[in-house]
Amino acid sequence: MSQTETTPSSIRLVTAAVLVIGDEILSGRTQDTNSSYLARWLGELGIQVREIRVVPDIQAEIVAALNALRARFDYIFSTGGIGPTHDDITADAVAAAFGVGIEHHPRAMAILSAHYPQGEFTEARMRMARIPDDASLIDNPVSKAPGFRIGNVFVLAGVPMIMQAMLDSLRDQLVGGPRMLSASVGGTVAEGHVAAALGALQAEFPDVSMGSYPYFRRPPPGSDQPSPYGVNFVLRSINAGRLAQAREAVCAMIRAQGVEPVDRD
Amino acid sequence: MSQTETTPSSIRLVTAAVLVIGDEILSGRTQDTNSSYLARWLGELGIQVREIRVVPDIQAEIVAALNALRARFDYIFSTGGIGPTHDDITADAVAAAFGVGIEHHPRAMAILSAHYPQGEFTEARMRMARIPDDASLIDNPVSKAPGFRIGNVFVLAGVPMIMQAMLDSLRDQLVGGPRMLSASVGGTVAEGHVAAALGALQAEFPDVSMGSYPYFRRPPPGSDQPSPYGVNFVLRSINAGRLAQAREAVCAMIRAQGVEPVDRD
Repeated sequence: MSQTETTPSSIRLVTAAVLVIGDEILSGRTQDTNSSYLARWLGELGIQVREIRVVPDIQAEIVAALNALRARFDYIFSTGGIGPTHDDITADAVAAAFGVGIEHHPRAMAILSAHYPQGEFTEARMRMARIPDDASLIDNPVSKAPGFRIGNVFVLAGVPMIMQAMLDSLRDQLVGGPRMLSASVGGTVAEGHVAAALGALQAEFPDVSMGSYPYFRRPPPGSDQPSPYGVNFVLRSINAGRLAQAREAVCAMIRAQGVEPVDRD
Repeated sequence: MSQTETTPSSIRLVTAAVLVIGDEILSGRTQDTNSSYLARWLGELGIQVREIRVVPDIQAEIVAALNALRARFDYIFSTGGIGPTHDDITADAVAAAFGVGIEHHPRAMAILSAHYPQGEFTEARMRMARIPDDASLIDNPVSKAPGFRIGNVFVLAGVPMIMQAMLDSLRDQLVGGPRMLSASVGGTVAEGHVAAALGALQAEFPDVSMGSYPYFRRPPPGSDQPSPYGVNFVLRSINAGRLAQAREAVCAMIRAQGVEPVDRD
């Protein structure tokens, strides 16, 4: 159920997309955790992540994804590909997507030049100062090489610790909308037993999106017990009062199955 | 560096995309692990995941993503949204994307009818037997409600344990290409010190993609030590001999920094 469908049209939600750049995520070797961190961090500011894409280290792929996403969402956050090696092509791709030039940025050069010991600011490291024209720098307190912002696109590092530090400096640049509030309750019910009642509740609360997430846990090895199962219900709304009412209604639905609801907030 | 760019044109790589359907991933509440599992599992079969998209539980978004991806990649694997509740709209979205009808599938009805105790095969559960016309069923040994295949699209459950069980039954339906082999070595070098040499090696080994992944680890609390840092180099090729040569060359590059390379395979 989409919040964009269930929110009065006078209230405008602020949206974002995350673009993860990196062959390592696509190979499954590295688990992307930046997307979920961004989603939670942006959610706190009233910015809803509505799409995540992971693309390989290929310029044409990055350009196409970036142009598709920046036309549709208020903010785009990219992660990865801004280091000094040949496979770091994000800055060039962003410049190409925006149709602007790319040069060594004077302040980025000064930051990096001051950071490295004499003779250590190699040509490869100067690559990290190449910034698309008209972009503004994003501070990197960890390893100094800056990210940058151009238009509604924020280009961040891929290393989680650096990405998170960069985000901290961006808070003032982001304008959120109404914050999406959530409530969550679970119970050892079967989805099939509550689906009809839940659908009726969703119809009754069009301004609260209701998600139903079954879980199945493997029984301990050697156990004869059937898999423990249950459902977590996640409710979302920008209206705290309606959210609380919907939560109570879902708890009542669980109790009607003879099961005590469990707080999952 | 793209393998499609670095592989002789006579060798065709087999590609896939993963489409993750679910508001819970986009909110950051649930960490998607299905994508990386699929990427590794498919990689073993010689199928390379080249894009991952996460979209919300909105039919138009699912349809648009599915049609974009199925035109570009050999195989598409979707996860999520095939349960019995109102927010499970994947089957309808897939039918709409393919422009086909959707009905209660006789065999899916029989499987589910046999699974549930007398009187328990509710109307909501019958929703899980709604399958697009011309699709074939994918066995679900865990909770019985089947996935399905239509064209090059495989529709799987979102619960990881069920998704993984469904995959096992698909092995014979998938035709992989050459398997991408990988080798990985690390060292406590600085990317900026090796970037030029690595770029030269990449030029020397156009048939081996070379990725450079720096890491920074937070020092223990209270420690005066600077953050430990280093780089992992990940090499990929379909040619085992060239991969081994490239690995040796990267090890030599690390040793030239006075650092002993560490096996990361």
